[in-house]
Amino acid sequence: MDKFCFGIDIGGTTIKCGLFTANGELKEKWEIPSRTENGGIQVPQDVADTIDAKLKELSIEKKDVLGVGIGVPGPITEDGTVLKCANLGWDIFNVNEKMSALTGLKVATANDANVAALGEMWMGGGKGYKNIVMVTLGTGVGGGVILNGKIVAGSNGGGGEIGHMTMNLDEKETCGCGKHGHLEQYASATGIVRLAKKRLLDTSVTTSLRELAEVTAKDIFDHAKAGDTVALELVEELGRYLGLALSHVAAAVDPQVFVIGGGVSRAGSMLLDVISKYYNQNIIFALSNKEFRLAELGNDAGIYGCAKLVIG
Amino acid sequence: MDKFCFGIDIGGTTIKCGLFTANGELKEKWEIPSRTENGGIQVPQDVADTIDAKLKELSIEKKDVLGVGIGVPGPITEDGTVLKCANLGWDIFNVNEKMSALTGLKVATANDANVAALGEMWMGGGKGYKNIVMVTLGTGVGGGVILNGKIVAGSNGGGGEIGHMTMNLDEKETCGCGKHGHLEQYASATGIVRLAKKRLLDTSVTTSLRELAEVTAKDIFDHAKAGDTVALELVEELGRYLGLALSHVAAAVDPQVFVIGGGVSRAGSMLLDVISKYYNQNIIFALSNKEFRLAELGNDAGIYGCAKLVIG
Repeated sequence: MDKFCFGIDIGGTTIKCGLFTANGELKEKWEIPSRTENGGIQVPQDVADTIDAKLKELSIEKKDVLGVGIGVPGPITEDGTVLKCANLGWDIFNVNEKMSALTGLKVATANDANVAALGEMWMGGGKGYKNIVMVTLGTGVGGGVILNGKIVAGSNGGGGEIGHMTMNLDEKETCGCGKHGHLEQYASATGIVRLAKKRLLDTSVTTSLRELAEVTAKDIFDHAKAGDTVALELVEELGRYLGLALSHVAAAVDPQVFVIGGGVSRAGSMLLDVISKYYNQNIIFALSNKEFRLAELGNDAGIYGCAKLVIG
Repeated sequence: MDKFCFGIDIGGTTIKCGLFTANGELKEKWEIPSRTENGGIQVPQDVADTIDAKLKELSIEKKDVLGVGIGVPGPITEDGTVLKCANLGWDIFNVNEKMSALTGLKVATANDANVAALGEMWMGGGKGYKNIVMVTLGTGVGGGVILNGKIVAGSNGGGGEIGHMTMNLDEKETCGCGKHGHLEQYASATGIVRLAKKRLLDTSVTTSLRELAEVTAKDIFDHAKAGDTVALELVEELGRYLGLALSHVAAAVDPQVFVIGGGVSRAGSMLLDVISKYYNQNIIFALSNKEFRLAELGNDAGIYGCAKLVIG
């Protein structure tokens, strides 16, 4: 009989679920809603129930399940203690113990950005490497550091919090975290749109972006590819901050490859080129010419990484 | 019979040697000169000879030696391949294999700044912790990242190259590595003296530092402690760059404690206070209030870390 495991990526809106074989084949994937009301108290039971239902549906016995890997949207220590999880309303508790009691299965838990990085290392843009740094450029900037094939969770669950590196000491606007000038304010989808809106306030600036009712990150890259000078400058600005930030990460942990994911990464090679340009401008020679790759698993990176947590 | 191991910290001028018991007691320490002529070809044999001589002197048999840990002043991969070692004139070769053949003992090798960090974690300022970041503020700025009790060597041997984080994009003067605006240009002993000399060029600046024939890093901290405004500003500038750089490192790996060593660290609590002030100004809340501690092993940190490489 084949062995199986579950990858459960808990988000603020939906819980993405995957059933994998022990060698990493995704057999089934589905979603259930995240019931975040009442401090998210229902979420653990919902996860246990959907696992039970799937096992019953496919006539898989628990003895053939290696375990359940879980990703949560907040800082979590290596032993599975979630420290605060605003998106779910969760307080402090040990997810491994709770979910193990509910499912009767072995459970491993990690931060969602970190499991995405692990998933990309295993089966995506970082395949073949053991030391990768992933950044996810979405609404925010998430990050994950994988060394020797393992997540660097950090002593406060803050490993890979790359989006909150302070990149601009002169920034007046506030980051989501309350500080100023963090990478997320420039290199996320929200961030580059913010920069664009600031440029458009200057009525003397001529740009094809002005013709749009609303500017998105995709628009900015599309107009840059079409040659619009202002859009090109905005892409450069994103690349300048992100390339510099990744040079800082490299000076700390010297990975083999950087994997860039999230919605903004759909801009493709133009994005990789501008990041690597500014990375190489700043990095010490011994660490130059790292590989920059696009993520490949999209929204499935998390469930893959969760499964890998269990498979080891 | 007790078991022993050697810690051999190879520098550009001297080779520091220590004989340790397996539980970390330093039994003997001594130095031999680094013969760097002819591409440092004599260094491995000199190390083997001094080990043999010490074993003979103390009537210790090789079967009672766990191994030899070696620190080298340059980037080195996890398997012991030195990539370039300008200070010794060494080309690329595998130090573990070479030294194992010469000594008949098990050999483990790591970068000198990294073994100093490992030593401080084991028996110095980071004792009791498994996740530490150490910076050594000397002629340059060295760094070491220790996670789960192990050195992060990095894929190019560049783990912990904190001194070469780009902190000032507007810097015109050149770092020792050829780039511009690296941390080492501000936070090393040489760096803060450079900043002082620039200030003193402005003849309208009034400072007690002007009375000195030559300004040293120690002078700057001493005059700051005595209340000299310009010296205080220079200490703030060092702290601003270093606190920011360490906030970048924390966002990547989230250590438990930062250990500050090297000559500049003799400034003591004034230095720790200014670093932690700027660290906390920049870091995301979840990673605030890290411990900042002074290194405790001085020049012996390297030999301790080398011994720990072998003891594991």
